[in-house]
Amino acid sequence: MKRWNIVLTGFGTVGREIARLLEQRRDRYRQLYQADVRLVGAARSTCALYDPEGLPREQLEAFAQRRQPDRPGWDATEWLSTVEADVLMEAGPSDVQTGGPGLRYLRQALASGMHAIAVSKGALVVDYAGLSALAKAKGVQLKISGATAAALPTIDLFAYNLAGCEIKQVEGIFTGTANFVLTSVMEEGITSEEAIRRAQQMGIAEPDPAYDIDGWDTAAKIAILANAVFGAKIKLSDIPRASIRDLSPAQMAEWKRAGRMPKLIGTIRRTRAGVEAAVELVAVEATHPFAGVSKTTKAIRVETDVMGELMVVGGKSDPVAAAAAALKDLEHLLSG
Amino acid sequence: MKRWNIVLTGFGTVGREIARLLEQRRDRYRQLYQADVRLVGAARSTCALYDPEGLPREQLEAFAQRRQPDRPGWDATEWLSTVEADVLMEAGPSDVQTGGPGLRYLRQALASGMHAIAVSKGALVVDYAGLSALAKAKGVQLKISGATAAALPTIDLFAYNLAGCEIKQVEGIFTGTANFVLTSVMEEGITSEEAIRRAQQMGIAEPDPAYDIDGWDTAAKIAILANAVFGAKIKLSDIPRASIRDLSPAQMAEWKRAGRMPKLIGTIRRTRAGVEAAVELVAVEATHPFAGVSKTTKAIRVETDVMGELMVVGGKSDPVAAAAAALKDLEHLLSG
Repeated sequence: MKRWNIVLTGFGTVGREIARLLEQRRDRYRQLYQADVRLVGAARSTCALYDPEGLPREQLEAFAQRRQPDRPGWDATEWLSTVEADVLMEAGPSDVQTGGPGLRYLRQALASGMHAIAVSKGALVVDYAGLSALAKAKGVQLKISGATAAALPTIDLFAYNLAGCEIKQVEGIFTGTANFVLTSVMEEGITSEEAIRRAQQMGIAEPDPAYDIDGWDTAAKIAILANAVFGAKIKLSDIPRASIRDLSPAQMAEWKRAGRMPKLIGTIRRTRAGVEAAVELVAVEATHPFAGVSKTTKAIRVETDVMGELMVVGGKSDPVAAAAAALKDLEHLLSG
Repeated sequence: MKRWNIVLTGFGTVGREIARLLEQRRDRYRQLYQADVRLVGAARSTCALYDPEGLPREQLEAFAQRRQPDRPGWDATEWLSTVEADVLMEAGPSDVQTGGPGLRYLRQALASGMHAIAVSKGALVVDYAGLSALAKAKGVQLKISGATAAALPTIDLFAYNLAGCEIKQVEGIFTGTANFVLTSVMEEGITSEEAIRRAQQMGIAEPDPAYDIDGWDTAAKIAILANAVFGAKIKLSDIPRASIRDLSPAQMAEWKRAGRMPKLIGTIRRTRAGVEAAVELVAVEATHPFAGVSKTTKAIRVETDVMGELMVVGGKSDPVAAAAAALKDLEHLLSG
């Protein structure tokens, strides 16, 4: 039985679910992959744990509850250099402008020969190409399902389900929160401001909704996909973004009359000039495959050369589903 | 560079597309997988070719055209025992009652240590469990994407995209021909008899449409999925089947009034009694995710424990797409 030591950076809601599922699936990994998978390390923003034999559940629970004083300047870099692990799972806060600590941890882990599974998007948005080249040079793998729409398969489609196909175009509803707001606006006749407030009350939108509402989340996901799948070199700032913040009642009435549904759509297209990506607010016709994708549901549609079109709809958007997507990546490592 | 020798049994429309795509993608395989992939053998129902260095395109074209006298009792068994190959791709006629020659070829190839890629369903319907156990015992792989809805990912979903999830229920529109007939009946107000005739004229339905129209095709696909994914031991004859042959005008008018769409749906459910599979004619409501899946389009919907629901729609149904699905399986072998 091969031993697989995992370390986890980021111990928020998703990180904790990763720890829980790792524990819950230990027998599965033993039976299916003859793999003895142990979470040996976990880091939060102010402190970290490490036990080469594996962290017991009670210790992880206490770690999650621990109130640690802020330690300015502390990060997990030094700790990460002392742990021995086969895989880093990075689930810390996402910083799409600089990559944040997550980018440093991923670089450090790959450079020291660990496989890496990214759950947060920031590092990938900022430097997918660099991380991917580093993984290749070190003969390890960088997996990113958890960071690209999580339970909705996106990167999988290209790397696995459509292996060998030429991808002509990708479009998707990638941000559940934005889709929830648009659905509420159309179905309940409320303003986008009201719909955003309601989504915040339901815990669907963040206190600062800008990231989801102004197209940043969709742009981040298509930046990663364009760079990972199409080999593009697109920066977040290259991607035109639409916002759904200020939809006018007149505009909504017009769409309703025309039987159209507004959708925030991320697209990636191969053009003669290269690869183009954009976040657009599109009022699709009632017969469009995206018209019925409502509330927080996400979808992706891919046009290929020989396998026709493929659309995938669904995939939960909660911390458990995000953790499960990262653990799917882990299984692909275990089976590889 | 590793040499991968492929042999192909069955040289009909799909088999020929496999040969063509293998040739077309040679450079891709070299670059991506450092694999020198060569088609070294091909068998039809009356004759076979073999060249350990690879079959040149001209020779394959002549082979496809060759009019060979019927040779009663001939099959590729003896020929297959003399070829040296790493992978058998089985694309012969499908016999869901006995498994036909395809089942013999797959057993023979696996027993001699080749990986196998099944494109036709018969062998898998009759003995998936046996073939799978044989592959495991020999340390080789049995891949079946091409046989389970081809360009629509089905088996992939469970083995890869949802790895680690518990699958609670599967339902799908698995037979493009049946869906085409049902769509025509509802949209054009013609009888199912007329719609079947029209599908035959368009080359969508076979001269004997029973296999598609009476639910056999759907039943065959869900039998394979139930056995491969749920570890069930379901025989084709265990699966209740619905037919769409005799839809009454009164029934259709009733569905129309109710705003429903008839769909031939294959389902697999986990119950307390075990795994149950059925082919049902269901009149779904207009808001059902399958209502908009029309003409020859196929779809699958999966309910999981932690990743929510997932629906995949699309995937072309022509010989090129079927060949491309089999070659996707090949890439998974090359990368593994």
